[in-house]
Amino acid sequence: MTTCIFCKIAKGEIPCNKVYEDKEYLAFLDIGPINKGHTLIIPKKHFRWVYDVPDQGGYWAVAQKVAQSLVKNLGAEYVMFITWGEEVHHAHIHVIPRYENDGHVGFPDFQKKKSFSADEMKEIEKQIKGE
Amino acid sequence: MTTCIFCKIAKGEIPCNKVYEDKEYLAFLDIGPINKGHTLIIPKKHFRWVYDVPDQGGYWAVAQKVAQSLVKNLGAEYVMFITWGEEVHHAHIHVIPRYENDGHVGFPDFQKKKSFSADEMKEIEKQIKGE
Repeated sequence: MTTCIFCKIAKGEIPCNKVYEDKEYLAFLDIGPINKGHTLIIPKKHFRWVYDVPDQGGYWAVAQKVAQSLVKNLGAEYVMFITWGEEVHHAHIHVIPRYENDGHVGFPDFQKKKSFSADEMKEIEKQIKGE
Repeated sequence: MTTCIFCKIAKGEIPCNKVYEDKEYLAFLDIGPINKGHTLIIPKKHFRWVYDVPDQGGYWAVAQKVAQSLVKNLGAEYVMFITWGEEVHHAHIHVIPRYENDGHVGFPDFQKKKSFSADEMKEIEKQIKGE
């Protein structure tokens, strides 16, 4: 039995606000977003690090797709990609939209979380999906 | 005449510590590294944002290759990818090796630059290339 939280999300054992899914990858809203639309992208199969995923093209094409949607559908000025990995030990890409006057001066401050209700998160999910 | 510093580096008009190059992409040491081996990867053609590069697979395969070398040849514990873009307006991926006791607690502090001499930078370049 896995104890990896992202494996559980990938299997549907823990719910998430899903913005994109295919056979290999899953994109969902970060529950501790630093900006509106902050999304995580994971391979469904467990890998420790982002650079352990063999198909970098397929993986980052999802990040590109989400980034373009954040610009188009949420009005982001631009989008950042960040991979760290000490928080959760399952490969994930942070896709972080930046907005004018978003409260982050220059490089974003990961301590500055933003709070959205369940209804707001559902609405953001729909916007990113272009619904 | 371009005034973009990364276009000038791509054309060889400004020197760099080159760790990888192919027809489309160039990887070189950041001149203001926050850790030993901090590398930037750019498309030679000018794009504003990383997600504007059409061939995400080719681009991130270079990041993967450099990350694997930083682990193997420089002894990095793990490697982070960060894309921002407010510093220089030409798409670039920061490839940042993390080491035990590297002076960054948790998420790295971009104000904490490390200093290496030209000889040391040349030596780091060679190590990443596996020479």
